[in-house]
Amino acid sequence: MTELERQGAQAKAAARVLAVTGTEQKNRALEAIASILEERAEEWLAANREDTDAAKAAGISPALLDRLTLTPARIAGIAAAVREAAVLPDPVGQVTKETVRPNGLSIRQVRVPMGVIAIIFEARPNVTVDAAVLCLKAGSACILRGGKEAIRSNRKAVELMREAVASAGLPEDCVSLVQSTDRETARELMHLEKYVDVLIPRGGPGLIRSVARESSVPVIRTGEGVCHVYVDKAADLAMAAKILFNAKCSRPSVCNAAECVLVHRAVAKAFWEQALPLLDEKNVALRADEEALAVLGERASAAEEADWDTEYGDYVLAVKTVSGVEEALDFIALHGTGHSECIVTEDPAAAQTFLNGVDAAAVYWNASTRFTDGGEFGLGAEIGISTQKLHARGPMGLEEITSWKYVVRGSGQVR
Amino acid sequence: MTELERQGAQAKAAARVLAVTGTEQKNRALEAIASILEERAEEWLAANREDTDAAKAAGISPALLDRLTLTPARIAGIAAAVREAAVLPDPVGQVTKETVRPNGLSIRQVRVPMGVIAIIFEARPNVTVDAAVLCLKAGSACILRGGKEAIRSNRKAVELMREAVASAGLPEDCVSLVQSTDRETARELMHLEKYVDVLIPRGGPGLIRSVARESSVPVIRTGEGVCHVYVDKAADLAMAAKILFNAKCSRPSVCNAAECVLVHRAVAKAFWEQALPLLDEKNVALRADEEALAVLGERASAAEEADWDTEYGDYVLAVKTVSGVEEALDFIALHGTGHSECIVTEDPAAAQTFLNGVDAAAVYWNASTRFTDGGEFGLGAEIGISTQKLHARGPMGLEEITSWKYVVRGSGQVR
Repeated sequence: MTELERQGAQAKAAARVLAVTGTEQKNRALEAIASILEERAEEWLAANREDTDAAKAAGISPALLDRLTLTPARIAGIAAAVREAAVLPDPVGQVTKETVRPNGLSIRQVRVPMGVIAIIFEARPNVTVDAAVLCLKAGSACILRGGKEAIRSNRKAVELMREAVASAGLPEDCVSLVQSTDRETARELMHLEKYVDVLIPRGGPGLIRSVARESSVPVIRTGEGVCHVYVDKAADLAMAAKILFNAKCSRPSVCNAAECVLVHRAVAKAFWEQALPLLDEKNVALRADEEALAVLGERASAAEEADWDTEYGDYVLAVKTVSGVEEALDFIALHGTGHSECIVTEDPAAAQTFLNGVDAAAVYWNASTRFTDGGEFGLGAEIGISTQKLHARGPMGLEEITSWKYVVRGSGQVR
Repeated sequence: MTELERQGAQAKAAARVLAVTGTEQKNRALEAIASILEERAEEWLAANREDTDAAKAAGISPALLDRLTLTPARIAGIAAAVREAAVLPDPVGQVTKETVRPNGLSIRQVRVPMGVIAIIFEARPNVTVDAAVLCLKAGSACILRGGKEAIRSNRKAVELMREAVASAGLPEDCVSLVQSTDRETARELMHLEKYVDVLIPRGGPGLIRSVARESSVPVIRTGEGVCHVYVDKAADLAMAAKILFNAKCSRPSVCNAAECVLVHRAVAKAFWEQALPLLDEKNVALRADEEALAVLGERASAAEEADWDTEYGDYVLAVKTVSGVEEALDFIALHGTGHSECIVTEDPAAAQTFLNGVDAAAVYWNASTRFTDGGEFGLGAEIGISTQKLHARGPMGLEEITSWKYVVRGSGQVR
């Protein structure tokens, strides 16, 4: 047995206990986690300083350094988020369907925990706690595998969480960290189907694609977002400009930000008159097709083929001219990642065609793609945005990280 | 582009049309399929005779030959099943959740088709039609890959179905067959994630495991069934004997048949007095642990370690003695395949412990495992029994082969 197999077996055993643990005890464990993170924040900060010192020495970018850094205020925020998870309704045990068959069998479909959830993620140490806490509340054990930049912070966070979980009378193996950050161990985790029920990668598109390709453990793909805003010929152009500006600029690094605007040729000139002043505020770079270049002139540069499939995560926007809803749908079918897509129009028929025809987790009529988020959808905390069609699609809250089983009660029925 | 990639692209294009096709038109296509299969049954029978002649020449077993053979009566049954699928409710467009957020956004979770469903299956030609028809009704295009024994029957069935689908005004690529039956092509299909949204293997455990291991297309595992009946010390022993007999003997080849009985040691002797006369009717071979051997004597042979993990599919039953519910749960956690598990007891506390503690698609209290079936659960037709935890678990009807998306309507909201 390898070290990771041992860890998997321990997580599986812990998951069996956690699966039949009541809501109150799980909430006590969450409260214990929030408390220990606050009370022993100094230890966590010290571990984090070692990570940030090493990262600085290695010449990490300021943006990444910022994401890696913990502060007392950030720890307070993390602890508050843990307490918020405690008050969310427990999905486990919810009856999702119920029927009594003519032969008297009572059949209930009941939500049950997933079992063991593995999460492979990149540098932010808050993800370590978020992910563990959501899994715990949903009745599943988790195996966390973070990036090497945050390894000291993650070790300390997991050490503290295990202590807290044990203090609430639950097996400490409900939460564990993969100790090695090398690729080989990550790959081994992707083939640990004997113990791991689902694997959720959180990070850049490269990470997610390679995990989806390699893993024999079932994967939920999250957060690949090449999102489009389509400005229809019947759009309220002021609204369209405002929505595009928000979708592109309110937080360009996140997956629900827009990367490409599709503009109906009949309104292109009038639209850009409204949109450019807004985009100029953030110096958004425009990568335009030939027809749009003719309108935008020197304000834009020529798009290359690769632009249509790029998640910039920055103040850069691809611009494509289209002849109507159908061409927009074709373009999105070819280049979208199934995350969030938007039409701006006052024409209900065009809107309906778009809403029906787009194959994505979320499709918007006259609203920003930035709303694709667990909190904005009213699900509470989320563990990611699923961009696949199996099991969960869109923001994944507690329900989305559970499974179901059928519980059948009889009185001796045979078939 | 390979032949299979071309087929994938055509299926994807057909799926986009099918996704926005109304219920009535889909039902017309199903009716056209039922009619053409009846009207041109002679063609299908002739193709099937070529398959069965080749199979006989190759020395196929009588059981497999029987499964491969079409008859006019079987074709009538297949056509009737197609018409039954037509009257099932259309899952596409169902609103599964609905909310209006404080900012006025209307958010609906709506059922949408999966897109392209690939199915890899073994020799029965009726599966070809069943699978295509359920996918079609659920709004998805399908790519079918059957076994080489049935290739002529499958080619004819798919040719007829494509003609019927086209006659109803839908793209014929809604249904297609992988023309080659070699392993390389099957493997290529498992990596066609650009066009295929989900892959469902139907067949023996070897096929299913190898597909799950190899595929980078998301897989739904179906039909691996090492199912247990646990006879508790508080069981009504006559009921237990009747349930075990039904679970083992009513149709031993199917996945919801029991393979192993777990018997509480306190009631072993009395239980076997009731159960043996029933099992003797079918000459069920017993493979027992040491303690059970002491009770069963020469009626049983000694179980080997491999027996606990074997899906016999035959009149063979493994017998294990346990000390109570907890040991039964441990044994099932180790050897079950997550399909169907049963406790027979009059003790509600023991039943509840078992129902909560078993991690399987269906868990039964005082009823036969044989009820795990789409029809018996009231879902109508099914495409298989999922034994995994993601997306679908248990009998998969029309809803289980759909996905969802969020449809969000706004009036200019930004975040």
